[in-house]
Amino acid sequence: MIIVFTGDGKGKTTASLGQMVRITGRGKKALMIQFIKGPWSSGEDDFAGKFQIPNDKFQIRKMGLGFVGILGDKLPREEHEKAAHEALALFKSEMETGKWGLMVLDEVNVAVSLGLIPAQDVLDAIKDYPEEKLLILSGRGAPQEFIDRADLVTEMKDIKHPYHDGKLAKLGIEF
Amino acid sequence: MIIVFTGDGKGKTTASLGQMVRITGRGKKALMIQFIKGPWSSGEDDFAGKFQIPNDKFQIRKMGLGFVGILGDKLPREEHEKAAHEALALFKSEMETGKWGLMVLDEVNVAVSLGLIPAQDVLDAIKDYPEEKLLILSGRGAPQEFIDRADLVTEMKDIKHPYHDGKLAKLGIEF
Repeated sequence: MIIVFTGDGKGKTTASLGQMVRITGRGKKALMIQFIKGPWSSGEDDFAGKFQIPNDKFQIRKMGLGFVGILGDKLPREEHEKAAHEALALFKSEMETGKWGLMVLDEVNVAVSLGLIPAQDVLDAIKDYPEEKLLILSGRGAPQEFIDRADLVTEMKDIKHPYHDGKLAKLGIEF
Repeated sequence: MIIVFTGDGKGKTTASLGQMVRITGRGKKALMIQFIKGPWSSGEDDFAGKFQIPNDKFQIRKMGLGFVGILGDKLPREEHEKAAHEALALFKSEMETGKWGLMVLDEVNVAVSLGLIPAQDVLDAIKDYPEEKLLILSGRGAPQEFIDRADLVTEMKDIKHPYHDGKLAKLGIEF
């Protein structure tokens, strides 16, 4: 089963993390592969280590190189494209192990809408995803092909937002 | 800071759980108080026990008695009302300890829209919630007063949904 979390509001990555909590609580294993988020540390990265949760049951892999083309990004675009393709290759090899009950392709929708990776490459990669396992494609601006392919789609819609975004980062809401 | 997660789509409780992951990864403590969900076990309930996460750092308290007025609910309505008031009393006493960096009132929006507890009682209870801590009010049908009071509101909008809901429960998506 394939779920898409999209939209401009908060809650896409956290809903994916929460689904990892729920499903690992049920004894299955969950892996999140992050397509955009870079090598800096987020709360969710420290979580598993802090509570000594085994890596083979609840794992987050940061494959992105950070924001693309904004916030002082000086990397050549090819580096970002390469990183996105490597993330997708990692997905394919991990899917083939058959061990993950839930896989999350975090911000894959963004990677596609930025043109780092073609939507078709992702569709090809998920073509044989097992029906009895769960796959989440997250990120704003989900391509229509992903929505068509998904079984369940939620749009996280921004209804109200603090004027100063710094406040969110400070409270541990953003990262 | 107060966040409202509302709307008819999937992802409200899981986004709250994910925020608990993120903030506890940052070294703060998180408590979820569930207003509706009953004594049956969900994936998220088993999660902390399974990975031996200390109860005083990541805790879920089920204060509800299950679905109200549907699915074979035979409890007198007063029992549900009493449970909702007890959940709110628990929130107040836990808030006063000052130990939780994040508190989630899961499905409190539903408890209000079902009339189990007046919106004003909740507004009174959260009136002095510290600005530097995070509070999430979740559940479909958030009352306008909660939206007005919140700093950030996301509507989880149901864009696409499987025809057979049983599939969701089976895969560990619902609970």
